[in-house]
Amino acid sequence: MAIITPLTEKLGLDVPVLLAPMAGVSGGALAAAVTNAGGFGFVGGGYCDREWLRREMEAAGNTPTGVGFITWALEKDPALIDLVLARRPPAIFLSFGSIGGFAGKIKAAGALLVVQVQSVAEARRAAAEGADVVVAQGTEAGGHGAGRATLPLVPAVVDAVGPIPVVAAGGIADGRGLAAALMLGAAGVLCGTAFFASRESLAHPNAKQAAVAGSGDATIRGSLFDLARGIDWPEPWTMRTLANDFSRQWDADPAGLRDNLAAEQARYAKARDQGDMDVAAVIVGEGVDMVRAIEPAESIVRRIGAEAEILLHRAGCHLSR
Amino acid sequence: MAIITPLTEKLGLDVPVLLAPMAGVSGGALAAAVTNAGGFGFVGGGYCDREWLRREMEAAGNTPTGVGFITWALEKDPALIDLVLARRPPAIFLSFGSIGGFAGKIKAAGALLVVQVQSVAEARRAAAEGADVVVAQGTEAGGHGAGRATLPLVPAVVDAVGPIPVVAAGGIADGRGLAAALMLGAAGVLCGTAFFASRESLAHPNAKQAAVAGSGDATIRGSLFDLARGIDWPEPWTMRTLANDFSRQWDADPAGLRDNLAAEQARYAKARDQGDMDVAAVIVGEGVDMVRAIEPAESIVRRIGAEAEILLHRAGCHLSR
Repeated sequence: MAIITPLTEKLGLDVPVLLAPMAGVSGGALAAAVTNAGGFGFVGGGYCDREWLRREMEAAGNTPTGVGFITWALEKDPALIDLVLARRPPAIFLSFGSIGGFAGKIKAAGALLVVQVQSVAEARRAAAEGADVVVAQGTEAGGHGAGRATLPLVPAVVDAVGPIPVVAAGGIADGRGLAAALMLGAAGVLCGTAFFASRESLAHPNAKQAAVAGSGDATIRGSLFDLARGIDWPEPWTMRTLANDFSRQWDADPAGLRDNLAAEQARYAKARDQGDMDVAAVIVGEGVDMVRAIEPAESIVRRIGAEAEILLHRAGCHLSR
Repeated sequence: MAIITPLTEKLGLDVPVLLAPMAGVSGGALAAAVTNAGGFGFVGGGYCDREWLRREMEAAGNTPTGVGFITWALEKDPALIDLVLARRPPAIFLSFGSIGGFAGKIKAAGALLVVQVQSVAEARRAAAEGADVVVAQGTEAGGHGAGRATLPLVPAVVDAVGPIPVVAAGGIADGRGLAAALMLGAAGVLCGTAFFASRESLAHPNAKQAAVAGSGDATIRGSLFDLARGIDWPEPWTMRTLANDFSRQWDADPAGLRDNLAAEQARYAKARDQGDMDVAAVIVGEGVDMVRAIEPAESIVRRIGAEAEILLHRAGCHLSR
């Protein structure tokens, strides 16, 4: 059995599940595993580390995978897109910035232009600038995002940009979320948190364990960790993570973090390398409630698909004459 | 045709749509109209204005309706629950506080105890304290709420408190949202924003017009308007509204509002009475994108139901062998 939507038709998928291009987490092995299981994987181009990206694109081998970029970071190294497009990826993912400078080149190379937005206004802009697929990302997503929530954002974006296919992102980590997204009018889902703790994920093993143990009640959205990482993210985007000792300490005293920035950035970098998740961020969203084990990505894709198929198949049972 | 869930069976409904007990907005006529259309209406007990509540319960007439309370406000006038239970309502709705002091009395009176929560931890507590139905409310909801978003909160609450029926609240204003909620495992939905601009709503006509014109991109969550209204809401609850001139002015200068509080509270009260929505809050959530006209509540209930029925009926069309 398979699920058919405009997204599965565009990309030749069995299941309308896209791997979010999580920076430093969605490497080539994970992206390829998602594609091989019937979904589609995006390698996380993130902050445009060329060496990392070249290595992970190699790791994906001949399996069709895409690359996702933080658009404002790509703008600082725009030639990187040529290096990626030379590999003829089926799709490129852009988020967090205007796509105008890249849309023409991506489409000319024959790649599907998948653009993530956080509001209806941005969705309209992305459609006007040539997006082939619009990803509507809610605030419950892990990592960077903004303020609107997935459930009301998706139908509003569908109404704004239809017939361009819309993909739902944020808070979707099982087949219930996929089936719900299809009811909202989405053509598929983008999942990050669901794959953060997968076997192929490049997250630190301790971060994966923290995700498995974590609760959606305990996630926060803010900029503390970007400050600690020394990354100057533009407005309005902030990052969702699990709360930990570090965030609790500095949430209560944000000025204190700025006053001790060099020392705290050094402490943070060391903690990240060592997998000290009391300090380093576990970058997951509210869907972490549905993450219960470290599993192969293939199992996750297949389970999300199978759960959704059952729900869609039985949906009519809610009805009576 | 009808939609059948554990909620429709418990309350004898055709459509699993509950009217949120919006303070000052969900009066007796609106609650009765929702029930008469096949859903179920809650009169908004709000801050426990006895005269208002008595009048609106009268206005609901003999149509079965419930009453919803802000639990921490009810704790200041606990005998009010006796006055309400004497009318033998089929259901009582409690939100924003511990239900422990009221659960026994409500259940002893034969009313269904519907408890709204904003996190998985609170859902577990409500279940332990005797909730018959748990409403999982996401941050996208209009009015008071907290930080978690509907789409990931609902399945997590279902997993935490099942087999107690769970109702999804926040961001649901059309049949797509209802069908999605059922896929998430909910037994129904609670809608506020969808009825805010209904003909029977007690919102000011100018507020209804502002809702129809408003965008989900333009809602904010915060405590400015509570300060302006002189209502001391406890943590962690804040209020979602449309942004307006007043919120933009004082969001940029929250200390300024406190410094000018008496004058600003007077200005606010006058604006609310006069329907000046540049100052007074339009208390709606992100679902406002789906509110496009001032309509009878009956039309809204029937449209939500009919849209969801079509989506559920056709859900299997997403599948192929």
